[in-house]
Amino acid sequence: MLSLVTHRLTGYVNPCVGSSVARFCTSRARMAKSKFEYVRIFETDDTCLRNCYIVVRLDGRNFHKFAEQHKFAKPNDDRALGLMTRSARSVMEELEDIVLAYGQSDEFSFVFKRTSNWFKRRASKLMTHVASQFSSSYVFYWKDHFGEEPLLYPPGFDGRVVLYPSNRNLRDYVSWRQADCHINNLYNTVFWTLVQRGGLTTVQAEESLKPYILMGQLERETGKERESERGGCAGNDLSQICTQPPCIRHQP
Amino acid sequence: MLSLVTHRLTGYVNPCVGSSVARFCTSRARMAKSKFEYVRIFETDDTCLRNCYIVVRLDGRNFHKFAEQHKFAKPNDDRALGLMTRSARSVMEELEDIVLAYGQSDEFSFVFKRTSNWFKRRASKLMTHVASQFSSSYVFYWKDHFGEEPLLYPPGFDGRVVLYPSNRNLRDYVSWRQADCHINNLYNTVFWTLVQRGGLTTVQAEESLKPYILMGQLERETGKERESERGGCAGNDLSQICTQPPCIRHQP
Amino acid sequence: MLSLVTHRLTGYVNPCVGSSVARFCTSRARMAKSKFEYVRIFETDDTCLRNCYIVVRLDGRNFHKFAEQHKFAKPNDDRALGLMTRSARSVMEELEDIVLAYGQSDEFSFVFKRTSNWFKRRASKLMTHVASQFSSSYVFYWKDHFGEEPLLYPPGFDGRVVLYPSNRNLRDYVSWRQADCHINNLYNTVFWTLVQRGGLTTVQAEESLKPYILMGQLERETGKERESERGGCAGNDLSQICTQPPCIRHQP
Amino acid sequence: MLSLVTHRLTGYVNPCVGSSVARFCTSRARMAKSKFEYVRIFETDDTCLRNCYIVVRLDGRNFHKFAEQHKFAKPNDDRALGLMTRSARSVMEELEDIVLAYGQSDEFSFVFKRTSNWFKRRASKLMTHVASQFSSSYVFYWKDHFGEEPLLYPPGFDGRVVLYPSNRNLRDYVSWRQADCHINNLYNTVFWTLVQRGGLTTVQAEESLKPYILMGQLERETGKERESERGGCAGNDLSQICTQPPCIRHQP
Repeated sequence: MLSLVTHRLTGYVNPCVGSSVARFCTSRARMAKSKFEYVRIFETDDTCLRNCYIVVRLDGRNFHKFAEQHKFAKPNDDRALGLMTRSARSVMEELEDIVLAYGQSDEFSFVFKRTSNWFKRRASKLMTHVASQFSSSYVFYWKDHFGEEPLLYPPGFDGRVVLYPSNRNLRDYVSWRQADCHINNLYNTVFWTLVQRGGLTTVQAEESLKPYILMGQLERETGKERESERGGCAGNDLSQICTQPPCIRHQP
Repeated sequence: MLSLVTHRLTGYVNPCVGSSVARFCTSRARMAKSKFEYVRIFETDDTCLRNCYIVVRLDGRNFHKFAEQHKFAKPNDDRALGLMTRSARSVMEELEDIVLAYGQSDEFSFVFKRTSNWFKRRASKLMTHVASQFSSSYVFYWKDHFGEEPLLYPPGFDGRVVLYPSNRNLRDYVSWRQADCHINNLYNTVFWTLVQRGGLTTVQAEESLKPYILMGQLERETGKERESERGGCAGNDLSQICTQPPCIRHQP
Repeated sequence: MLSLVTHRLTGYVNPCVGSSVARFCTSRARMAKSKFEYVRIFETDDTCLRNCYIVVRLDGRNFHKFAEQHKFAKPNDDRALGLMTRSARSVMEELEDIVLAYGQSDEFSFVFKRTSNWFKRRASKLMTHVASQFSSSYVFYWKDHFGEEPLLYPPGFDGRVVLYPSNRNLRDYVSWRQADCHINNLYNTVFWTLVQRGGLTTVQAEESLKPYILMGQLERETGKERESERGGCAGNDLSQICTQPPCIRHQP
Repeated sequence: MLSLVTHRLTGYVNPCVGSSVARFCTSRARMAKSKFEYVRIFETDDTCLRNCYIVVRLDGRNFHKFAEQHKFAKPNDDRALGLMTRSARSVMEELEDIVLAYGQSDEFSFVFKRTSNWFKRRASKLMTHVASQFSSSYVFYWKDHFGEEPLLYPPGFDGRVVLYPSNRNLRDYVSWRQADCHINNLYNTVFWTLVQRGGLTTVQAEESLKPYILMGQLERETGKERESERGGCAGNDLSQICTQPPCIRHQP
């Protein structure tokens, strides 16, 4: 249980104000400040290495539960994706030097340009600004996307910073998130189709999909991946969803 | 200007789905994922040193302007302070191992217990979770404190992590923020009294307070601080405000 | 194979000197320097957290092989231990703020005082200075300890920095290294006694000691450690060696 | 003053050995070790960002004094430069993945290849290994270069790690050190010529060179650098020295 503490912390001098004593008190507080100010040197420098792309990736906290409580449609909820995109746009509008944003599900990545010197490239400043702006925007724009569906509580997102020294590394990062997006979407779509149209329980659906997962792993482990590439593929509606997650960039 | 990019990023294989080819595509995406997954090793470890207090301090972004646009009362706005406190409480309720929160104006400090192992003490996780939860709560609870006054845009807060190895260091940190709070409150109260009741312009008020600032500095520099401590002080209503900023802690 | 490159690196302007052109060349080199000097900003700050003990631990590189090649006596070589101690003393004499040094076998730990501000507490400066001074001293004082036994090649030591925020943590660190020392000495002494006096081969000796190692592990895992503590112990000559590794500290 | 401490540190259990009690003591020490081993988690990860060049630069400690005490010739001492080069070669022979070494005066830079995974790219391992190997080699090979001139005490070198993400950055780093080398050599050569052949005192020589330094600065500040580039230059013996500092690389 939390309690609001309204009395002074131990050891703090009695503050005061008044026409004749104001000067004393001010200098007294100043003195106190100068006496304690040494604690600033405990702050450490976390400057990002120059000439690297700075990527900040956000992830929703407990969004599995959040999605259930807010009745997100399965496998994909357009309102939720729209709100994520709107929040990401808010981040790009408010913060500087972000050249690309890419998202899926409850995660979003923001790429700062290599030469950015925003907040002197301090990692903590960059990632907390992104996490904060995204989160406040998510609540602020909720109504625009969910209408009468009420937001039950303020959601949370965590963030991290990753540096990429080359164009190739950055492209592979985005490809990695994109492949991840595709796999998740494919699995979820098939899973929910089995449940919603096939009449299976969630346990049965999970069970019936296991061979495919194992097979994929097997193929990877035995180096048979190449073979499967030969298989022809036909795009369909799903591909429109799973390969077109929100990706925002500044117009040239 | 931002544009929503809905086509695939260059270099990404054409995804697909269908009863007969699902297996191929899954393993293909998996393959792609495993091929790109090396980018994960670019993530660095930012574990906070054990047996140290972890402090996360948030600061409002451009809150001078934010306060003006939302007509905050001067020198202190009870609604704004109440909302800050409410948001801080939300952080303490949702996140683990925070033992103390202390705030003033547009900043708030959160102290994690020394032994906390929440998110394996990863600095990025801790600071972004705090910044995110605080920001979404600020918007979520706005109406409870500001009523019909509309929130014009989603606000931002940045955060940082500082480690303190000893009880003494931590106490001095809180004392430092408290002395800072007192100085700012004292100055602001006198400043706005001169403007609101004394009929001075803001420029005149600033001008008339300069000697006190300089005197304080002078005293500090010449080592005369001790003398001013002898001056007796009488608390008044202001002291109730400036020495009682919101401080929340868990009940023992 | 290595080759000495004596020609200029590509892209470097032709340097020169002479009474009439010296000025041009100087400013030209200066210009070049100012043009390239931006690379300095890639250096990062690695300041050690204040108010923590800074421990630098060195470890010999491939010392198993080094010991064999230089015919170290088994299980302990007095000459080698003496040289390690002499090198550690050199480190303590030359570098500042080291309050304790503790070593065993081919490793040595150096403890800097909590308040040290030597080289602004930059971790890289501290650990490289210790590693360098120790290594040059090891070669410099070799003859004093090994006499006519020649040093075949320059040995290497690696180092690391670890921070400890409390007295308790530091004491436990030293206890950890001391327990490690005891275990290693005990094992080595018994092992070499079996070989040198018992006539066993090294393989046989290793084999015959396995049960004790396993038993120790078993006890630890089943929580039976307490029982074994009841056993009375009698010190002997070995204890003089294994519990008295070189430990140097500044006289109060 | 230093003293060798040969008694046990407080709090350490009495160690022992003997045919019947060996088992007890071993498990006891093991227990102690497992009890204290938690201190290992205070070690932090300092992995260098992947796909970046890792540069370790060494600098001699108090080499101005060292040079005087060992009667180094002015402005350049061939024996000293030869020993530096020999030590750098030793580093390249013993350690892995170093592709380039470049030195001047009492400093030497070592460049690890971008893809190196030596010691898992741990910065502390890399820089201490380089500092250690260089230092022990410097003493080891002293006699080969200085003959009968005795080495008075073991010298020290500090080191640091800098990361460069691109080929361009790395080339500019080497150019920066090279320009620095040229400036220093030019100044030192002229300075010592004025002293040794011109009969000036060191103070007079310094005084007479000031205008050139100021002029260089002036030119840089006023952007007149371009003009000075037009001046023709003629190489001479000096250029052989100052532009050909030891640069070692692996043969392709």
